Amino acid sequence: MSKDSNTIYVGTKPAMSYVLAVITHFNSPEVKEVSLKARGRAITTAVDTAEIVRRKFLKNLKADKITIGTEELNREDGMKNVSTLEILLKR
Amino acid sequence: MSKDSNTIYVGTKPAMSYVLAVITHFNSPEVKEVSLKARGRAITTAVDTAEIVRRKFLKNLKADKITIGTEELNREDGMKNVSTLEILLKR
Repeated sequence: MSKDSNTIYVGTKPAMSYVLAVITHFNSPEVKEVSLKARGRAITTAVDTAEIVRRKFLKNLKADKITIGTEELNREDGMKNVSTLEILLKR
Repeated sequence: MSKDSNTIYVGTKPAMSYVLAVITHFNSPEVKEVSLKARGRAITTAVDTAEIVRRKFLKNLKADKITIGTEELNREDGMKNVSTLEILLKR
């Protein structure tokens, strides 16, 4: 698992914002892997981000490990389950 | 890779429709794996489907292999790239 500093939380911004964040992380030569984490609707954006980075920018990157899970969110109207996705990008 | 007959294409219906489809497939004892395929916004629904099946119904299932990719869609306004996700569920 990557260190927290190499984890990017994907939210509601356009995929390109996260693409730039991934590229910036990999600009440090000591960074070997970056983890993309998303939940709910942002899962699609996380997959878009990984695919754009791999196809257009850092073509030697691998989606080394993809894991899915569930988180319980404590909301005003009670507990809600939300799906999560993590993509570990490795060079 | 699973045979096509054990592939479920996840689209715009609620996740529960696909949960039922997965359970129905696994009701045949000879079915050892089912593949969930989705693209674009439906990716989130595919993850929801896999998580609901594993957590609420078939708890011995494993998300054996998760792969991401890109498909080129030929639309009226030109080519468009869309992300894809495949989740292989195995018992």
